[in-house]
Amino acid sequence: MSPSNTPLVGLVMGSDSDWPVMKAAAQALEEFGISFEVDVVSAHRMPEEMISYGKQAHQRGLRVIIAGAGGAAHLPGMLAAVTPLPVIGVPVPLKHFDGMDSLLSIVQMPAGVPVATVSVAGARNAGLLAVRTLAAGSDEHAGLLRDKLVDFQTELASAAHAKGE
Amino acid sequence: MSPSNTPLVGLVMGSDSDWPVMKAAAQALEEFGISFEVDVVSAHRMPEEMISYGKQAHQRGLRVIIAGAGGAAHLPGMLAAVTPLPVIGVPVPLKHFDGMDSLLSIVQMPAGVPVATVSVAGARNAGLLAVRTLAAGSDEHAGLLRDKLVDFQTELASAAHAKGE
Amino acid sequence: MSPSNTPLVGLVMGSDSDWPVMKAAAQALEEFGISFEVDVVSAHRMPEEMISYGKQAHQRGLRVIIAGAGGAAHLPGMLAAVTPLPVIGVPVPLKHFDGMDSLLSIVQMPAGVPVATVSVAGARNAGLLAVRTLAAGSDEHAGLLRDKLVDFQTELASAAHAKGE
Amino acid sequence: MSPSNTPLVGLVMGSDSDWPVMKAAAQALEEFGISFEVDVVSAHRMPEEMISYGKQAHQRGLRVIIAGAGGAAHLPGMLAAVTPLPVIGVPVPLKHFDGMDSLLSIVQMPAGVPVATVSVAGARNAGLLAVRTLAAGSDEHAGLLRDKLVDFQTELASAAHAKGE
Amino acid sequence: MSPSNTPLVGLVMGSDSDWPVMKAAAQALEEFGISFEVDVVSAHRMPEEMISYGKQAHQRGLRVIIAGAGGAAHLPGMLAAVTPLPVIGVPVPLKHFDGMDSLLSIVQMPAGVPVATVSVAGARNAGLLAVRTLAAGSDEHAGLLRDKLVDFQTELASAAHAKGE
Amino acid sequence: MSPSNTPLVGLVMGSDSDWPVMKAAAQALEEFGISFEVDVVSAHRMPEEMISYGKQAHQRGLRVIIAGAGGAAHLPGMLAAVTPLPVIGVPVPLKHFDGMDSLLSIVQMPAGVPVATVSVAGARNAGLLAVRTLAAGSDEHAGLLRDKLVDFQTELASAAHAKGE
Amino acid sequence: MSPSNTPLVGLVMGSDSDWPVMKAAAQALEEFGISFEVDVVSAHRMPEEMISYGKQAHQRGLRVIIAGAGGAAHLPGMLAAVTPLPVIGVPVPLKHFDGMDSLLSIVQMPAGVPVATVSVAGARNAGLLAVRTLAAGSDEHAGLLRDKLVDFQTELASAAHAKGE
Amino acid sequence: MSPSNTPLVGLVMGSDSDWPVMKAAAQALEEFGISFEVDVVSAHRMPEEMISYGKQAHQRGLRVIIAGAGGAAHLPGMLAAVTPLPVIGVPVPLKHFDGMDSLLSIVQMPAGVPVATVSVAGARNAGLLAVRTLAAGSDEHAGLLRDKLVDFQTELASAAHAKGE
Repeated sequence: MSPSNTPLVGLVMGSDSDWPVMKAAAQALEEFGISFEVDVVSAHRMPEEMISYGKQAHQRGLRVIIAGAGGAAHLPGMLAAVTPLPVIGVPVPLKHFDGMDSLLSIVQMPAGVPVATVSVAGARNAGLLAVRTLAAGSDEHAGLLRDKLVDFQTELASAAHAKGE
Repeated sequence: MSPSNTPLVGLVMGSDSDWPVMKAAAQALEEFGISFEVDVVSAHRMPEEMISYGKQAHQRGLRVIIAGAGGAAHLPGMLAAVTPLPVIGVPVPLKHFDGMDSLLSIVQMPAGVPVATVSVAGARNAGLLAVRTLAAGSDEHAGLLRDKLVDFQTELASAAHAKGE
Repeated sequence: MSPSNTPLVGLVMGSDSDWPVMKAAAQALEEFGISFEVDVVSAHRMPEEMISYGKQAHQRGLRVIIAGAGGAAHLPGMLAAVTPLPVIGVPVPLKHFDGMDSLLSIVQMPAGVPVATVSVAGARNAGLLAVRTLAAGSDEHAGLLRDKLVDFQTELASAAHAKGE
Repeated sequence: MSPSNTPLVGLVMGSDSDWPVMKAAAQALEEFGISFEVDVVSAHRMPEEMISYGKQAHQRGLRVIIAGAGGAAHLPGMLAAVTPLPVIGVPVPLKHFDGMDSLLSIVQMPAGVPVATVSVAGARNAGLLAVRTLAAGSDEHAGLLRDKLVDFQTELASAAHAKGE
Repeated sequence: MSPSNTPLVGLVMGSDSDWPVMKAAAQALEEFGISFEVDVVSAHRMPEEMISYGKQAHQRGLRVIIAGAGGAAHLPGMLAAVTPLPVIGVPVPLKHFDGMDSLLSIVQMPAGVPVATVSVAGARNAGLLAVRTLAAGSDEHAGLLRDKLVDFQTELASAAHAKGE
Repeated sequence: MSPSNTPLVGLVMGSDSDWPVMKAAAQALEEFGISFEVDVVSAHRMPEEMISYGKQAHQRGLRVIIAGAGGAAHLPGMLAAVTPLPVIGVPVPLKHFDGMDSLLSIVQMPAGVPVATVSVAGARNAGLLAVRTLAAGSDEHAGLLRDKLVDFQTELASAAHAKGE
Repeated sequence: MSPSNTPLVGLVMGSDSDWPVMKAAAQALEEFGISFEVDVVSAHRMPEEMISYGKQAHQRGLRVIIAGAGGAAHLPGMLAAVTPLPVIGVPVPLKHFDGMDSLLSIVQMPAGVPVATVSVAGARNAGLLAVRTLAAGSDEHAGLLRDKLVDFQTELASAAHAKGE
Repeated sequence: MSPSNTPLVGLVMGSDSDWPVMKAAAQALEEFGISFEVDVVSAHRMPEEMISYGKQAHQRGLRVIIAGAGGAAHLPGMLAAVTPLPVIGVPVPLKHFDGMDSLLSIVQMPAGVPVATVSVAGARNAGLLAVRTLAAGSDEHAGLLRDKLVDFQTELASAAHAKGE
């Protein structure tokens, strides 16, 4: 896993077995030229590093966190509890329940601690949501990203349109 | 429903019957001093206005959209399809299925069009997620919001702590 | 995908990856000699063309729309919002949840905007329902179709009967 | 329950306890001036009358059947098996499972025998779908209905719009 | 499918594609020397023969009916509506929903019309339940069957016990 | 709870809190003049008496057992494991999950040990299924019961028919 | 909430709104004379205190932890991640999904970090499981508890038996 | 299956087909040097041996029972009903429903009879929970186990950490 330099997005997952799902987030970030870092940060196996990761994230310059986890998927919610950054949660489907357990464990957060949840295995959308979040800013980079997103939507339409012909 | 001036957040819902759920988002935005507007924008009953709303949102200066809907809840996803802004979806529970239909209709978006989904009836968290999104920017306002969010988390801890005594 | 001439039925789907499911609708229409057209019309990737498609459908002479979609399946409901034609929705099962998300996203429409939903992957029945709809008219063609449907049911019985011997 | 004269739509239900849900279909038909009849026709308690009802429906001049049922809701599917008419099924929620059993029992029909299923307790939409079906014909009445449906959609938009002000 | 002579049990299914599941019922009946007949009787494709089959079943000497069906599985319930015999329903799993739709369509019968439902794909247990039903009689054959069932349970225990060693 | 004399049916439940649901079984048996006994027999709180009850049931002259239980509903299956009699299971809904846990715990029995499961809270149908089981015998009483059941079905049809007028 | 002295069991919950459910655990512990402490320890609102609580628990002499939480219920699993003590998780049902989200978030833990999960709202059983855990020891107190548990089971049987008379 | 000598843990399952899932419990026990025995004990096929096993377990020196079962999974709950020992239940997924039936049948126990339930197919965690239970005692062995568990958690963190590099 190759982190980019001066990352704006922290892309973390509970286990390296989540990577085949999560790499689609990395790819989306690359398409938009967003620098990011990739890490295994397990809520259950390295809880204290996980807390540290979350607490320091905004101090290190990260502006969005994408967290993937499966089953009793605590990572996105626990990070959201210790960072002021927006946390995007990706429910990773495990062997049973087709990701329904992952989805509910991530999305059903109590009032006060939001997680921006995407679809089961929806890592590409997590990456795109991170781009939209960065594009929601007021600086020049945000403006450029917003333009890129509008172009991206135009391309989606063209590609979809082409398939119907 | 009283919109604030020069809104940064567009708070929309498919029906005014969603307001008892959605007003918690408005309240969270007010707590953080975020200007916002409130509208009924129905994907199914006024689809063209809905498309227009979505297309013009970022041009009008909105930076985040919060959309609540129930049942076959198409509003958040349709808005996400026509705006480059981050769209936060709130699954509103209707009379049957306890919001499960709303949740799946909102969260299971196809690759390319993300919706940042919060919990069933989780409008307060939608508001807080909008705040985090605005706080992820690089300008001064973002920095102030980020500090407020850190304070907010400290207060959550204090309040929770107090209840245990 | 080969559309017939002067189509009565518009057969659309959110993605060409839905075709392996949806082609059974085309086949049913062909068995009854119903002219139809086939298109990829994505609610999420080409929302404005989708709205146009729906708005013009009855003006172009279409009398029934069959729409297949998966996951947060917004296509059938959005078309139903902009056309006075009956819209038949086919829940296409995607990789997770076995089509339950598709089913709920299609069937749980709000009052005012009906979608005639068939079973998960039930495209053949969507085609047959379109035939029944056309056969419910008062003209000669409808009468002929109705007779054909009665014959079709007799054949179903014979075929089922033969299997038991 | 007061049937209209020369009915075009047969509105049936498995039990008179379904009437509080099903009457919204009657009301929708009345709004569009569609003549209809109302009957209790139980698949489980009067199976032979049910078969007769279905077989004679199109001979008596009915052009659409709306059938509501709950639990192991067999009525819509059994009628669809013996009539060439389009059958619209309304899943009536009973005391347990919130209508999920009714929905699956109605929508998951085998290939060859379609039921046009609407949402749980979605009787109003069943009525509107019957209107759309009649409006899909080629005669003058159909054309008038189609115009009315377009007006109806305009009114939906106006009403929804008004709520946002 | 080879029916025995002077059958006591009618083993029916909605489609011959159910036979791979349903044959385990036949095998259980054979193990206990119960005569039975096998037929394809489809509620949806041959509804009138189905009604006839059910109405005549007890007159022809059948004493138990086993009916397997999948999806909107109407066969067991419809047979139960027209026969005074005990009807045992086997939910056959189809391609989607893992048999949950079949189970709910069979088990959730309204008061007045019971179906004795076994597990998803539980055809062997359907056969054994037919044996228990016949063994609940007061005649000599019933007594012999009851003794056989007690022996059968002893053998189950022995076989299970042997596996643990 | 008043047992009848020389009972043919054993009506048991895991807790006396199940009685409001289960009494409908008693009432159905009374309507058909079937003698029965009522007992609280808990699989979890009095497992050894439960085993004894099951083992002796057929020796005491019982010919059918009806067992109601909720949650992790083990009573019907455990009785089925120790008696050769047909056991009818009634899923009693508890405070959570609307009886889905009770249903799955009762119906999903392993091969070899069938339980005849009825609908959630379907105690009346459990009583009627016991009647059908006794009516499946070859003696005079069975013949009389069978005639009564045919009459009963005729009355159901009349009553349903009357409601439609 | 009144903690006992020199506690063996730590009874914690994510919010004081969980107390109406969780107090049944306290009552069970009191019945067996087990000393315990009660605290609000929120995984999401006071994550660092929560980690500290878990890490110090066995050092302070606690021997079992009971943790109740609802929705995306992270408390039991996070405590289990930082303590070597057995952690018993109680899924608290919130307003939606009837505790299914709480159950899956607690029980579906990854390999390496077990949580002993009881039924939805099953706090009394959580207390009794803590007693059984303490009774599984090798010291005199454990032996006395084990005897008490055997007596308790005898009383359960007597009470259940009495209800059947 | 090779039992160790002087077992502290009884590892049982309803069928030897459960062994591929359950062996992970055995492996976890071996890693911590816990003696255990392995047996097939079927609630449904050998109910009386099952009761005996449960009643004698603590008298034979067992201190924890691990029980795996699938479908209508009665084994863990029935053992819990007859032993004062902590019983750990492992929901074994069978061919349908992905273990949801197994999970609900095990976890939804009535008040008075707790089962410590782990995740679907979570046998490794069942073994680790047994270790934690033994480590909760007050004797020297418990202390050593507790230290081992702390080391084990440190190793989990190291292993997880290494994967991120």
